[in-house]
This record gives sequence, C-alpha cells and structure tokens, in this order.
Amino acid sequence: MGEQSFEVKFEPSGRTVDVLAGTSLVEAAGRAGTAMDMPCGGTGTCGKCRVRVNDAPEAVDAEQRAFAAAEVAQGWRLACRQRVTRDMTVVVPESSVFGGRHQILTDHDTGAVHDLEPEVRQARVRMRRPTLEDGMPDLVRIEEALRASGAWNGDGVLKASPATLHRTVAALRDGGYEGWALLRDGAMLDYHPGETRTPSYALAFDIGTTTLAGVLLDLSDGTEKAVVSRINPQTAHGDDVISRISHAVQGERELRELRGAVTAAAGEMAAELCRSAGVAPGAVHTAAFSGNTTMEHLLCGIDPAPLSMVPFVPVFGRGLSVTAAELGLAIHPEARAYVFPVIGGFVGGDTVAGLLATALPERAGATLFVDVGTNGEIVLSHGGRLWAASTAAGPAFEGARISCGMRATAGAVEKVVIDERVRLGVIGGGAPAGLCGSGLIDLCGQLLKCGALGCDGRLPAPEALPENIPADMAARFQRDADGEVEFVLSDDGTRRVSLTQRDVRELQLAAGAIRAGIAILLRQAGLEIDQLGHVLVAGGFGSFIRRDNAQRIGLLPPELPHDRIVYIGNASLAGAKWGALSRRARARAEVIARLARHVELSNDPDFAMEFAMAMYFPG
Amino acid sequence: MGEQSFEVKFEPSGRTVDVLAGTSLVEAAGRAGTAMDMPCGGTGTCGKCRVRVNDAPEAVDAEQRAFAAAEVAQGWRLACRQRVTRDMTVVVPESSVFGGRHQILTDHDTGAVHDLEPEVRQARVRMRRPTLEDGMPDLVRIEEALRASGAWNGDGVLKASPATLHRTVAALRDGGYEGWALLRDGAMLDYHPGETRTPSYALAFDIGTTTLAGVLLDLSDGTEKAVVSRINPQTAHGDDVISRISHAVQGERELRELRGAVTAAAGEMAAELCRSAGVAPGAVHTAAFSGNTTMEHLLCGIDPAPLSMVPFVPVFGRGLSVTAAELGLAIHPEARAYVFPVIGGFVGGDTVAGLLATALPERAGATLFVDVGTNGEIVLSHGGRLWAASTAAGPAFEGARISCGMRATAGAVEKVVIDERVRLGVIGGGAPAGLCGSGLIDLCGQLLKCGALGCDGRLPAPEALPENIPADMAARFQRDADGEVEFVLSDDGTRRVSLTQRDVRELQLAAGAIRAGIAILLRQAGLEIDQLGHVLVAGGFGSFIRRDNAQRIGLLPPELPHDRIVYIGNASLAGAKWGALSRRARARAEVIARLARHVELSNDPDFAMEFAMAMYFPG
Repeated sequence: MGEQSFEVKFEPSGRTVDVLAGTSLVEAAGRAGTAMDMPCGGTGTCGKCRVRVNDAPEAVDAEQRAFAAAEVAQGWRLACRQRVTRDMTVVVPESSVFGGRHQILTDHDTGAVHDLEPEVRQARVRMRRPTLEDGMPDLVRIEEALRASGAWNGDGVLKASPATLHRTVAALRDGGYEGWALLRDGAMLDYHPGETRTPSYALAFDIGTTTLAGVLLDLSDGTEKAVVSRINPQTAHGDDVISRISHAVQGERELRELRGAVTAAAGEMAAELCRSAGVAPGAVHTAAFSGNTTMEHLLCGIDPAPLSMVPFVPVFGRGLSVTAAELGLAIHPEARAYVFPVIGGFVGGDTVAGLLATALPERAGATLFVDVGTNGEIVLSHGGRLWAASTAAGPAFEGARISCGMRATAGAVEKVVIDERVRLGVIGGGAPAGLCGSGLIDLCGQLLKCGALGCDGRLPAPEALPENIPADMAARFQRDADGEVEFVLSDDGTRRVSLTQRDVRELQLAAGAIRAGIAILLRQAGLEIDQLGHVLVAGGFGSFIRRDNAQRIGLLPPELPHDRIVYIGNASLAGAKWGALSRRARARAEVIARLARHVELSNDPDFAMEFAMAMYFPG
Repeated sequence: MGEQSFEVKFEPSGRTVDVLAGTSLVEAAGRAGTAMDMPCGGTGTCGKCRVRVNDAPEAVDAEQRAFAAAEVAQGWRLACRQRVTRDMTVVVPESSVFGGRHQILTDHDTGAVHDLEPEVRQARVRMRRPTLEDGMPDLVRIEEALRASGAWNGDGVLKASPATLHRTVAALRDGGYEGWALLRDGAMLDYHPGETRTPSYALAFDIGTTTLAGVLLDLSDGTEKAVVSRINPQTAHGDDVISRISHAVQGERELRELRGAVTAAAGEMAAELCRSAGVAPGAVHTAAFSGNTTMEHLLCGIDPAPLSMVPFVPVFGRGLSVTAAELGLAIHPEARAYVFPVIGGFVGGDTVAGLLATALPERAGATLFVDVGTNGEIVLSHGGRLWAASTAAGPAFEGARISCGMRATAGAVEKVVIDERVRLGVIGGGAPAGLCGSGLIDLCGQLLKCGALGCDGRLPAPEALPENIPADMAARFQRDADGEVEFVLSDDGTRRVSLTQRDVRELQLAAGAIRAGIAILLRQAGLEIDQLGHVLVAGGFGSFIRRDNAQRIGLLPPELPHDRIVYIGNASLAGAKWGALSRRARARAEVIARLARHVELSNDPDFAMEFAMAMYFPG
C-alpha cells in the first residue's frame, strides 16, 4: 500500500512538505503553512495565486491567459492549476499569500495598509552635555531632548524603571550624550549609545492545546526570522482543555505545574528562535500570545475553575499586558507581552487572533471562520457583525478516542483515496502506524462516496456489502476477535490499522457538532447556507483536510461550491504575529473580542435538534 | 560632673525623653519628635503651643491671658513658657503641632485642608451572578459594576495583573459577587469578599545617610500606628555619601551590596512595624521613601557615579514609582512605593519632603529651611520661589572627624552649660563617653560666650587664658601629650573626653559652609538677613541644637531674633508620611522639586569669599 509521494520546497519560507502525487500546489502550500490568495475559489480565473515553479511544465490555458509569454517562460504558473508530479521548488511571492505574512501588513478586503506599528520604538536622542549651570538629571535631559526633536510628546513625564536608569548611566556617557531611546508609551525601556538604531525583534506564540508554535519577527520590517513548534508539554495531563482544568483545580501546586510547563516551553522556544536566527535575546522587545481561553488562563497562572462550571465564565476578557518574564521569556528585561482578548469560555484568544489575521469583520459578504483544532470554534461574519460559538468537537480530529488514532506525525495515515483500489498517504512514507484526523475524514468521506457507508454511519457487515464496491475495498471489511465489524487499512502481521464502528460514531459526533453550530449561527444571523461567501478553514489541522471529503462527512457545509472553502493555515499564529508587530492590531483585536456576540450553543433551544440531525452524514 | 535630668512623657505619641532641668517644654517636645506650632516665636503671645501638663505649676501671666480660668485649672499651659523641673507627662493636642502629624493633613499657612487621598482606595462592588445568557468575564463584570455605581470612571479599561486575577476567582465567588475592589488608577490590585472594607495601611521611610526611620500609617484616618528607626547599615562603608558612592562605583557587586543593605533593613523595619502594630503585611498597600539624592539612587540600585563627579548630575529628578518588593518590602504583592523627587545632586528627596511637610512654598514671608544632617541642605522660600543649595557641612555634626566625636547615643555629651561651673548633659545619664554634634555646638557656643574662645576659633593656651573666666573652666584648658591645647570635659582616669583645636576647625568649616550658603541664597533672592521671617531647622539632629549656641557659632544666623528659629523635627519623615497618605501631596512634591532653583554654591563667584568670612565665628 502507500503511493508515490514527492517533496515540494517553498521559497522564501524554505519549508518542505511531502505530498501524494496529484496534490494541487495550493494544497501543498497550505500544508507548508502558506495559504494562497484565491478569491476566485481556485477556478483559475483571478490569477491571484501566482507562483514561480522551477523547470515548470507546459502552461495550461488559464495560465496562458493570466501571464505574459515572458512570464510563462520564467516559470510563472497558477498554484490552483498545478499538481505535484515530481519533486519541485516553488517560489511564492508575497502578493500571492492569503492570511500569512502578507496578511499581517495588508488588509486585502479594504485595501488599507496596516503599517508596522510596534509597541516599542526607538527615537534618536541628542543632548547637550551637563554643566555646573545645567545639572538637569539624566532622565529629564533625555525627555527634554525627545520633546525638542518632536520624537516624543507624551502627556505626562517620561518614566523609567530603576533598572533602566541604572543601565542608562554609563550608556549616556559612553555615547557622548548621543544615542537612541527605546520607548513604550510614556516609558523609556532602554538607552543605547551611538549613531545607529539597535536591532529590535518581537516574538509571537500560538499556545494550542496540543501544539505550541512560535515565531521570531524583525520589528524593522515585520519579516519572519525563525519558526519553531513543539507539542504542548501539558498534554501529559490530558488531551483536551477539560482534563487540563481538572488537573489545575486540584490545588496551587498543580496549577503552577501546568503553568510552569508551558512557560518553560515558551522560554525554551524563545531561546531556540533567537539562537537559530543569531539574535541576542535582549534585542527582543515585545511579544504576543494567542491561545484558547483555558490555555491563556493557564499560561497566566489564573485559576481556570470557572471555565469548567456552568456558565463557563472566563476570568478576564480583554487582552492582558504582562511582563515577558512572567510568561517564561528571558528577553529584554523591560519587555511586556500581549495576551489576546477572549470572547467566551471556549472561544478564546486564538479565535480572536484568527479573526484579526483574516480581517473577518471587514470582509464583504457573509463569511464563516472555522477552526478545527482540539476544540472547534466557529465564527460567522455578516454586515459588520460577528457571531461566535464553540463546539465540543473534541479531540477526535487529533486522533484521540479513535481506536487506531494518532497525531499527524510519522506513520500516520493522513490521506486516503479509494478508486479501483485503496491508496494511503503515510506521513514519512513508511508503514502505517495509525490514523490521524485528516486520514479519518478522508477514509469516511471515501467510504461514503463509494456507498460503502450510508448516511447513518453504520459500517456494513462483510457479508452484507453493497454489490458494486471494488474488490480491494470489500476485502477490508472484516470482523475483529469480538465479532465487531471493522475496515482494515493495513495489517502487516504485527500492526493492524483499522476503522471501527465506534470511530465512525466519534467522527459523527465531532463533525455533527460543528455542522450544528454552523446552522445555529446562520439562523441567528438570518442567513441561509447558500448566502455564505466563503468558509475560511483555520488551524494547522484544517490545512490537511481534503475539502470534498470534509463536505461529504458534513464537517464543512456540503451545499457550498467546493471552491468557496479556503484554507488559511494557522490563523491564530498569524494573528499573534500581527499582535506582536502592531499596537493598532492589538486595538483591533480588542474591538473584535468586544464586537463578537458569544453564542452559547447549549443554551440555544434549536441546538439539540440540529445536533441530532447533523449526526447523519449529508445525503 | 553631669546634672539633674528629668523624664518627660508626651501624649498621645507616648514618646519619652530625658532632658536637663530647665529645658523648655517646646525643646523637650522637639526632642520627642513633636514640633510645636509657635507663630509668635515663643514669646507667649499667640497661645498656639497649648499643652496640658499633669500636676501643673502655677500659671504665669501669659498663660492667665491665654486660657480661661477653668482651662488653667485643668492644667492647660503654654509649652513655650514652661520649663522642666521634675518628671512630667504632657498632652499635646493636634492643633498645637507644627510640621508633625497634624501638618500632614492641614496646611497651616493657607488654611487649606489636605484630605487623605491615598494612592489606593477601596470601592464597593455588587454584581449580578453570571448566567448562560450573561457570561461576562469576571474582570469585565467588576468593571461594569464599578462604572454603574459611579465608584470608578476610568478612561480606559480596568486592568489587573494575572496574579490579582487568580486571587479574585475564589474571592468573587466566596463573597457571592459582593465585595470590595482595591483600586489604584486604572488597575484593580485586589478583591475582597464581604460587607466591610479591608484594613489598609501605608509605610513611610526616611532613608538618611546615618539613620533610617519608618512609620506605619492607617490609611483610613492617617494616624500613626508604629514608629521604628535604626542606623543605616551602609555606614559600614563610610559615614558620608561620598564614601558610599566610592564603594558603589567599584562594581555591580558593591552597588548591589549597598542597595541590599538598605532594602534588607527597610524590609526588616516594615516587618517590625507590622508586628508591633498587629497589622498583616498584606494589608499595607502603598509606601513612600524620602532620602538624599545618593541614598535614593542606592536604594533603587542606580549607579551613583555621576553624583561624585562634576557637574554632580542625578540620574533621575522626578519621583519614581517602583514596586514595593524592589525596595525590600514584603507587603501587598501589588503595592508600589513612591520615591521622592530630587532637586539636585546634593539636594534630594529628603529636602523635597521637608519642604512639602512645612508647606514652604506657600508660606508668607521669606523663610529659610535648614536641614543639618550628615549634609547641610538650605532652601530659601520667598514670594513663591525657592532657592536650594547643599553645603559640604560634612559629618562633623554626626560626630565624625571630631577627636572624641560620637553619634548621639548613650554616653554622648549632648548638652553643655557653662556658668560658674561646667555642666554636662549626657545621654542616658552615665559617664561621658564622647561628644556628639549638639554637645560640640553647645561647648563652642559657651566658650565663645565666656570669651574663652575668640572669633578666630583659636583655643587659648592654659598659660594665656583671659582673666575673667571661671576657675572650673580655666582648669580644663590643658596640654595633651604632644603639647597641643585641649579643653577637657571629663577625665575619669580611663577615659578622657576633650575638645581639640582641630575639632574647633572642623566645626568652623561645617558651620561656615552653611552660613556662607545662607548668605548666597539670600543674595540671589535679593534679600537681607533681617528680612527673613523664620528659620525652620529640620533633621533629627536639628531638634537637639540650642538656638543661642547655634547662633553664637554662626550655624544659624546670629542677626535673627532667637524666637524666629523653629525646630520642626524630622521633616523628611513628615513629608514621606504625607507622600504615603496622599497622591495630591506627591503631586505637590513634584511641583516643589521642579519649582526649586538649584544653586550650585561652588559655582557662585561669591561663595569662596563668603565661606572664608564665615570661618570666623560671629563677633
């Protein structure tokens, strides 16, 4: 089993992915963390998803129309039209990226450019040297010089911590009373002697229930200097937020333990990011963290007990500004970190960050934002209003509660294609070790497509299979030792990877919850499903879902044209990056969090019925 | 030798002092830290210095005029008219206090009442309980309730640290969503459940070069709950600020050592104050520190090197707000401390605090403020303007560089009266062990009065004494082993306490510097000495100086009527108390520091001449 896969390298990110032959470049780019801009929905008509492919194949008609002959000759192609048929290198220009780095600086829909506007900035200071007639204190001298040059016009007086003042004494004199002040609001954080600005960086973190991701950014131009990710060490205390909360509420020690696990990891990641980019940790001057409500509470060491009890009230709502040291970051001693605002107990800062990165409130037309992570968050934007809900999608998509479930790591079946035979895509290319979320969706979607699985989700018994299904497929319906039906993906004698009836039920529950949530939000907004413009699928996991299979199982609205579903990658991290780079972005995040109407699904009288109905796969 | 002394106990402070027979009650009160209000200058005409004396002697004429017969019968007397002739207890009503506790709340000269206006305040919070329809986060819920009741109307959003939020979770629920929020500006520092306010206290510290003094204050009414003082442990590294700076600039370790010594002491004093008053350290919510410029820099761990080099520039000028923990105080975890603003390299926050406590800028008429501590600071107030200078008075008044010099502790000769014989007041009443500042001033003043010492300060040889001096005195002029002249105060065979020629020179230098400084400030203000209304003598040491002797040696202007010199006690501590109790006081301290014109004496072309002239004792 298994099928030929190829390596695609994307520039300038430098990221490489292994994909099955025939995968579109748009999908491959999504897996590499780069969501393509594709307003036409991948129909080849808008020409937005321009990429340059090395040793490019013949251009198709849409490409001939989209590019000048010289461009075609240089290898310019449309990512939505190209499929992977060999190892390749693809250059993605910034203008082709959706929801990624470019999105941080440009709002596609409004056309407005969001300037870099970091929380910290540097201002040139040139002072007269003190004399016996002019014994002005150092800090006042700096303030007066800043006011005189117009570089700072604070209402009050310029403030500085004792530690900053201590560092300033020698720096001021070493630089002959000329240098640069590092400012944040009304405070000087540091003073550097000399002619040139000091390098200045920011960190952005996405604190996921399962995965932590961190990025180091250059504050001079917003570029990404290094990326790192790792498993959230809190997973030792359970896969989902409820198990984390259960542990944390046992006592102060347990809360400190969970907090310490994630702050230590963030600290190590920060150090690793700096090391790999050759950046001095002291040159990192600000940071931003996004995460779901529970993750943010634990990160800050705040008792999460209320999140586990009706009515699931968060302790804080608006974003927090805390010292970077409190969050484990050994960066500039005066650096602060912005923790994203939350919308509700289960719609957190990661969702707000995603909405920020996609500029969802400003989008023309009704747009749905779906983050299929360990929890499933759904936000509907329409006419400047936002409705937000969370579903108990649970960790099925992360492989939990699935008999052969596993995370999307080496050995996981992450893609399934069934035609005349059953073909599997295995991460790393070796023998299958288990089934991850996207593989589970693919498998059930393909079984539904072939008619081997009905709307009720019942696996047919080997002796009662529909007649027209292929032989390779039919042979895989077997009974286990207990006589239960299962669909066997692989069995090399030592390891058997299969799908059980219980697994299908878990998938029905998870997908049904999201589908029902979408239905409730649409109803609250007074919209029909076909009025939806786009569905933005966020989350590292989201990028790996095949749209058609996700629509077949009802995770994504089956009524929608295939091309209105857009993968936007890790939108939480993209928003966190924006939050790290711009105080205006932080202000918008606060507006988004306040604007969003938090819909408590379990409190909606229609939800139970919708959920029950959504348990059936779409007909 | 030695003379009869009595114990005087003052109420309500409860402080007790031992004084020589014949000491006025005003002076005794000053030594007990209570400066009497005495606008008439002690002439018995204003009736302001009312006190009630137990078992009071017959009332004198001035008292018969000042009080009704019934009051006289109850023991009401004027402190300026009464002399100590036995052990006594004296009740000092608040209205009779100058520059003390009362001064903190009332501005005598303007008549304005300075309300208590602490940096922190408590506001009642009554909230609706959250429901599934109303999932407002805890902090937002508190903010909305505060806004609804009008208890808080901040411009931005209510902020809270993660640690405060963590503590709030249980408190909010334990109190059934009713309680009290502890607020500072736009931040909630704490939340307490229940019906009643939580007790709230403040700490005030005077960080002297030689002595540390601390007070615990009740923020509900401004009353003093406990007082403590100790020697500044930094004295192990030298008596004056220059020796401290010399040590600190050797390296980071040495600076940390000096800082740690004083913050550790402050921490111990805070703990002691809380213990003796039965107050939980967590109930102390704010603090204020005053000290000279060097002491404040060291307290904050700021490199004091610029203070030891021309042009003696302080690193900070305006007051600092730092976390209480940074200054060694283990009080409320969110508490901050106010560090007083400074005027110049050698006119520090202690002087600003003193000017604040005496409301110097608002006083009618030209007033001189003199703080005779380890350094001598002089401030002249006239027509709403302030001129401030420091003199290198040096530590002579603290007993340093004096052959038999010692601090004003047990065994120190602190008072000398010479008439037919030489009478000594010894602290603790035992045998003389040395000579402290006030004893040195007394001794030289009395020698001048008797004609045994001339204007040039030369000690006469035993064989060339003026003829009319008493025999007991004449016998004390002796030659030491090296043949140098000395005046022997006591000699019990094992210990000899005497005054040498070199000691007189040190006193001439110290007093002359202050006298020359006063002359320069008067000249800059265009004033003659007789235009001075009052001279306020501050500093713990100042209270122990006999005015007449201080005028004889020229430390205080000899031209001024004796009664225009007012002792105001530890004005720095009084100002620090005010700073601890009121944000309005802090704002005024900032204005004072900015208003004061810092006069660099060594830069004044007339200073050298004035100083040379001032080396002569007044004729």
